[in-house]
Amino acid sequence: MNIEQLQKQVDFIHEIDKLKYIQRKTRLFNSTRTENDAEHSWHLALMAVVLSGHSNQEIDLLKVIKMLLIHDLVEIDAGDIFLYDTAVNHTNTEAELAAARRIFGLLPSEQADELILIWEEFEAGETAEAKFARAMDRFEPLLQNRSNNGGTWKEFNVPYEKVVEKKSIIKEGSQVLWNYAKKLIDNSVEEGILQKGTDTD
Amino acid sequence: MNIEQLQKQVDFIHEIDKLKYIQRKTRLFNSTRTENDAEHSWHLALMAVVLSGHSNQEIDLLKVIKMLLIHDLVEIDAGDIFLYDTAVNHTNTEAELAAARRIFGLLPSEQADELILIWEEFEAGETAEAKFARAMDRFEPLLQNRSNNGGTWKEFNVPYEKVVEKKSIIKEGSQVLWNYAKKLIDNSVEEGILQKGTDTD
Ligand SMILES: [Ca+2]
Repeated sequence: MNIEQLQKQVDFIHEIDKLKYIQRKTRLFNSTRTENDAEHSWHLALMAVVLSGHSNQEIDLLKVIKMLLIHDLVEIDAGDIFLYDTAVNHTNTEAELAAARRIFGLLPSEQADELILIWEEFEAGETAEAKFARAMDRFEPLLQNRSNNGGTWKEFNVPYEKVVEKKSIIKEGSQVLWNYAKKLIDNSVEEGILQKGTDTD
Repeated sequence: MNIEQLQKQVDFIHEIDKLKYIQRKTRLFNSTRTENDAEHSWHLALMAVVLSGHSNQEIDLLKVIKMLLIHDLVEIDAGDIFLYDTAVNHTNTEAELAAARRIFGLLPSEQADELILIWEEFEAGETAEAKFARAMDRFEPLLQNRSNNGGTWKEFNVPYEKVVEKKSIIKEGSQVLWNYAKKLIDNSVEEGILQKGTDTD
């Protein structure tokens, strides 16, 4: 690898610092401080290390971690999309694709191509690695909301049924984790931090 | 894996959220906002993905990333130690070892043992993986300080010679990266954001 390639990599390393400014809706555990995308990505990557044994299928853990480290980088340009926002399409938007091309495009072309493919694989959610990575992405805010007395469920009036619908994709990555998560969601209703059927749609 | 083990893993996932509150001395790129350890760990892990081709030796990238994701967790109990703090011993302190035992000890014992070993390997800095991981840890704040008109070098009056001494372990992980880093350090003197020989020791 030559010095031009290294300079491109350093430019990328510099650019991705902006992920630390992208604020999510969810808050840190037992906290009122919102989480940023860099903190979130770190947490998911380490969750994958710890929880990979619960995957339904054999997975390439390195690939899962790469997915999780980069999965939100497009938000540097396209912004955070809230899971329960019903006005926005959550599949790959044009803006996200343009962001991926610009940000990963800072890298030497082979690396750019590799990371764009991995990001697209995560977004498509079809491979074992993407399914497990997406399970991590749904599981963390569930734990956070529970620790925050309902968190964004309460704040945005999200009903039990919608939470179950959105979180149930966890089972595609890990049935064990979904069994556990479903119990937490049900407990949340009993504890009064999540309400049934109050959706206004 | 049984439900008791999963509960232990969730307890660990909850506990490590605290890394997001540990503030470093260095600041984000082109910014006055200090970086926290979770953001730092995310950045280093993704740097390793991008820069691994520059390693002096063949490395197990997954192990390097695990090291970087967990390397600062002990600071939840032991606090951040500033690289240029001359009053503190930077090798494994008793407090850090106790922290590692407590925090990783939340996990099922096999995983706890694995992660403590990986953390110790990082701290010892002797394997190819540890050398490369440590190179990442030294390289990021160098880029940050340059983007911040000298950053902690200026703020804490750190002279050129000390910077070269501390940063030169980069070459154990990657000679290519060190050649690049050394040029940046030398340029910093020419640009007036780093001074020679003003150490007060
Ligand atoms: Ca560090």
